[in-house]
Amino acid sequence: MRLYKMSESGQQELVEEPIPAPGTGQVLVRVHASSLNARDLFMLDGRYPVPPGRVPLSDAAGVIEAVGPEVTRFADGDRVVNSFHATWYGGPQRKPGPAYHTDIDGWLTEYRLIDQQGLVAIPEHLDFTEAATLPCAAVTAWSAVQGAGPGDTVLVQGSGGVSLFALQLARAAGARVIATTSSEKKVARLRELGASDVINYVDTPDWSAEVRKLTDGRGADVIVEVGGAGTIAQSVAAVAYRGTISLVGHLAYDTTGMNLLDFSYSGATLRAIGGGSRSDLEDMNRVIAAHKIRPVIDRVFPFEEALDAASYLGNGAHFGKVVITH
Amino acid sequence: MRLYKMSESGQQELVEEPIPAPGTGQVLVRVHASSLNARDLFMLDGRYPVPPGRVPLSDAAGVIEAVGPEVTRFADGDRVVNSFHATWYGGPQRKPGPAYHTDIDGWLTEYRLIDQQGLVAIPEHLDFTEAATLPCAAVTAWSAVQGAGPGDTVLVQGSGGVSLFALQLARAAGARVIATTSSEKKVARLRELGASDVINYVDTPDWSAEVRKLTDGRGADVIVEVGGAGTIAQSVAAVAYRGTISLVGHLAYDTTGMNLLDFSYSGATLRAIGGGSRSDLEDMNRVIAAHKIRPVIDRVFPFEEALDAASYLGNGAHFGKVVITH
Amino acid sequence: MRLYKMSESGQQELVEEPIPAPGTGQVLVRVHASSLNARDLFMLDGRYPVPPGRVPLSDAAGVIEAVGPEVTRFADGDRVVNSFHATWYGGPQRKPGPAYHTDIDGWLTEYRLIDQQGLVAIPEHLDFTEAATLPCAAVTAWSAVQGAGPGDTVLVQGSGGVSLFALQLARAAGARVIATTSSEKKVARLRELGASDVINYVDTPDWSAEVRKLTDGRGADVIVEVGGAGTIAQSVAAVAYRGTISLVGHLAYDTTGMNLLDFSYSGATLRAIGGGSRSDLEDMNRVIAAHKIRPVIDRVFPFEEALDAASYLGNGAHFGKVVITH
Amino acid sequence: MRLYKMSESGQQELVEEPIPAPGTGQVLVRVHASSLNARDLFMLDGRYPVPPGRVPLSDAAGVIEAVGPEVTRFADGDRVVNSFHATWYGGPQRKPGPAYHTDIDGWLTEYRLIDQQGLVAIPEHLDFTEAATLPCAAVTAWSAVQGAGPGDTVLVQGSGGVSLFALQLARAAGARVIATTSSEKKVARLRELGASDVINYVDTPDWSAEVRKLTDGRGADVIVEVGGAGTIAQSVAAVAYRGTISLVGHLAYDTTGMNLLDFSYSGATLRAIGGGSRSDLEDMNRVIAAHKIRPVIDRVFPFEEALDAASYLGNGAHFGKVVITH
Repeated sequence: MRLYKMSESGQQELVEEPIPAPGTGQVLVRVHASSLNARDLFMLDGRYPVPPGRVPLSDAAGVIEAVGPEVTRFADGDRVVNSFHATWYGGPQRKPGPAYHTDIDGWLTEYRLIDQQGLVAIPEHLDFTEAATLPCAAVTAWSAVQGAGPGDTVLVQGSGGVSLFALQLARAAGARVIATTSSEKKVARLRELGASDVINYVDTPDWSAEVRKLTDGRGADVIVEVGGAGTIAQSVAAVAYRGTISLVGHLAYDTTGMNLLDFSYSGATLRAIGGGSRSDLEDMNRVIAAHKIRPVIDRVFPFEEALDAASYLGNGAHFGKVVITH
Repeated sequence: MRLYKMSESGQQELVEEPIPAPGTGQVLVRVHASSLNARDLFMLDGRYPVPPGRVPLSDAAGVIEAVGPEVTRFADGDRVVNSFHATWYGGPQRKPGPAYHTDIDGWLTEYRLIDQQGLVAIPEHLDFTEAATLPCAAVTAWSAVQGAGPGDTVLVQGSGGVSLFALQLARAAGARVIATTSSEKKVARLRELGASDVINYVDTPDWSAEVRKLTDGRGADVIVEVGGAGTIAQSVAAVAYRGTISLVGHLAYDTTGMNLLDFSYSGATLRAIGGGSRSDLEDMNRVIAAHKIRPVIDRVFPFEEALDAASYLGNGAHFGKVVITH
Repeated sequence: MRLYKMSESGQQELVEEPIPAPGTGQVLVRVHASSLNARDLFMLDGRYPVPPGRVPLSDAAGVIEAVGPEVTRFADGDRVVNSFHATWYGGPQRKPGPAYHTDIDGWLTEYRLIDQQGLVAIPEHLDFTEAATLPCAAVTAWSAVQGAGPGDTVLVQGSGGVSLFALQLARAAGARVIATTSSEKKVARLRELGASDVINYVDTPDWSAEVRKLTDGRGADVIVEVGGAGTIAQSVAAVAYRGTISLVGHLAYDTTGMNLLDFSYSGATLRAIGGGSRSDLEDMNRVIAAHKIRPVIDRVFPFEEALDAASYLGNGAHFGKVVITH
Repeated sequence: MRLYKMSESGQQELVEEPIPAPGTGQVLVRVHASSLNARDLFMLDGRYPVPPGRVPLSDAAGVIEAVGPEVTRFADGDRVVNSFHATWYGGPQRKPGPAYHTDIDGWLTEYRLIDQQGLVAIPEHLDFTEAATLPCAAVTAWSAVQGAGPGDTVLVQGSGGVSLFALQLARAAGARVIATTSSEKKVARLRELGASDVINYVDTPDWSAEVRKLTDGRGADVIVEVGGAGTIAQSVAAVAYRGTISLVGHLAYDTTGMNLLDFSYSGATLRAIGGGSRSDLEDMNRVIAAHKIRPVIDRVFPFEEALDAASYLGNGAHFGKVVITH
């Protein structure tokens, strides 16, 4: 089998290894697709330290090709997707567990052994490229919009994977969604996905005022914050009294802080989102299945061009997820 | 002004009284519509004891016609609907407060004084006959479907006011809805309101098996139980593991109990529903406004035929609410 | 190693087998103690069907004696206790998983292989006999008193394992506890464990009235119902408006039901309790460690007298848990 | 009656006015004590704008001396304390309502008319000086420690009113409490109130490291943040993974922000706390009554020396609340 590994000098190399056999409780997955997330970019190029020899990526979908003794959850031929947190199955997460790509080997490989507990079934209406987008981006969006219901307004920023999933999942829960974008070309696509209103934040840098106007002064009940320090001031100004800001990302990767006094007056809650458990993935999949939600895929790259896929994602022009087929 | 009152001999009488003037914190409502609930039937005909002189009914909508000193919530001309619980404004209800029709005067009157805290604004897209259906039936349905979201299945029984509101509110929250009915004629109307499936419980008395079949064996996540002792065994058989049965009504008004062993095995939760607070009414109204939900009204009677309206409701052939215009 | 197994003819037999070696992700536990629960009695004597060859009991504590490949949670010498549900790690339980004693082999054995995910560490201040009481009884009590806090009153019935754990855990959460008993001799011990009041239900069969009196008419906010059909009517009469009845057991194993009308008027919630997840066990253990709670053990039997232990428990005179040392 | 009012020139003046008579739904309170909060200091000296003629202070306790028509909650002679939010009775607070001292007249007066809904009964074991401390400081602390239970560690900062109430209420809920202080003299008193550990933040400016050490690396599950920008970095470093920082105050009244990246890594939730509803006050009072909690009063000033009381509070040497008797 072929797989990518980071060399001693920090380069990603495509290598060949024998296919392993499953031990007790383990299954062998033939990986058919993996997807890229913003976090991977930092690790692939060495900005975030990763031990040599590690296999990259955290998200994948494939088929069970062999099962070890005592495996009860799956059988040969089952279509599966991995949970982002390899050992967080449910309940409160008391401390971060081992993470794919940094602490343990990831999924940019043709085959991978894994404990049966780390996988869940793929919703029937999704193919492998679609399913491979679920572990990180979709579950993060799922966690970020928890609590948003049919009377609420959710604000999503831009058109990255998390933002689009948040849009779709919030709509499934009956919420109204307002989106921001920097590109007029994306406005129509955001509306097609269910956004009632789209604000161009280049034309309208004080977009919080526009959010207030669109909501009769109330503001957005839930804001999925992906900009970090670059957008938090607008988010605090746009959030409804006693609303929630779900802090997901840091496109503006700097240390300028959030004004605490303004935050106090907002009466809001700021939640640091970090994916979700296997139980969250399962709950989300039921919603994705019930509402026949299809992940938005911007572009699919072949396995051999995985590094090009990363460069493409880094350029930031995508609308939805970037996927690799194995 | 004209109003109905119960005489010493237990008859409802239409009488004439002077229009009162609001005191501090009070408003005068010109009532334009009221609605009937199952509970009223027991009180109107004396099966449930009500003191003589009491004005019937718990639900009404109208216009503010005068405001007393220190009124801040409303002004003349505001369109309002009352909260079912006159003094439960929000938070946990620690004990039942005074109830309209039994403990305090109700709304079958052309004018009524009330403390400003007992009213909320009517959603803009609703007229008075529609708004008058909200206090008891809609808020009860709202409480009954709390927790049901886009991955869940809600089961509603029949086509009374609570069941239809539960159907509409569950749909707004993204849930799938299965309905039961005894009438083939109602099947199409239940589907139009959003039910994915309708089970005729006359043809299919063991409807719980059908619910299991329709949900791949899972069962209904939330059941809005309006039948009481008559249907609870089927509900326990139909509820999803760790699901919820919201106990709303007792069409089968007898004391045969629920089998506790069966209930234990279901792993479920049984909640006694009793309307909701003013805060619940406000939250629900935001959803009704956002989703432009229109209450289903079966028939409207003029003020002079209020008792006929009650008889009509008692016959049980209605589909939705019975309303009286004042 | 020695272990008990049910023979083809339904007898429990003490047999000898070789000690197995752990596979991938597995650990070998040297069991030092197990405990008995009411559910075991039905299975040990065949009233509840169990396949021949099955090892009995669901709860045990011991030491890790060997670890297989890829084990990260434990090392040789770690003191561990099993989770009651072998594969429910956390989050909502969507369907019952395999249960010890009925679906999979239990713990009445000197050694047992188990996936590392099925165990948790023992709180430091507990010995093995104490720790062996946690999986079923303590976690059930933990689930049953969730939501009870420092302003609440919890009612516990009798002096079985679940009731005493509920008493201790409710006290740790700052709640007041009222206990019922049939024995004057147990009154003092219940008070020592923290009950503010103890009601003799033989002298006071209408004990709900006494609960009302002791709580200024409010009733008990949470009732841990272990009697089932035999006591539910008193519990419904004793529960606070909008309170909770946690349905744990069925000492009165009959099918007489609960009056639904009375339940409706109580405004309460009835929850079918069924143990808890590994995450619940961990959360509970933190409380047991922080408050230095010690399980109440009535009597300890040697491994060879395990069946006598079951008979003793069946007699019902115990105060707390019955434990077996291996 | 005598009362304080702000003159046109911004001075607080003691004036004489006739005692008013209650209208419909109103009661007349003979105020016996009021208490000072940090927020009052800004308003009393004009740093925060208040309209002329306004009566200061938000918290008071007294006796009902007359009731208007339709008053059902209280009778003459009842001992009452006001709710901090005059019209937030319960449920989610969708927007800030009128506030005492800024938007409506406060309580630095011998008598005050108020709608019956704005008051609650005083717990029996408290006198008026104690009860007068409840509306703002105690309810804020109550909101700040919600969710903290018997397995959790709560961190409180210093010895102001909110911090000491948070300590007492967290202890009542079974939580462990760690306190910080700058004064060795206060260490013993904090321990007497139930703190398991006290950290001198002058000697140990990196107190987050000490919190980690005291909690085996876990950190504090709930942090009651009263320092604002001055202490938030330490709080983010001290909070348990997935823990909560309740943002209550801003002793360091500047705009330096919170580092969002650090906050993300903490996995925590930051909640802007703003008092609580009448329902929260009632729930808290049940706990205060059940646990016989006594508010810590630093010093009591007579009505005539109310402005000296404010100066004294401003000096910041207090341990607990500063109260004024009327």
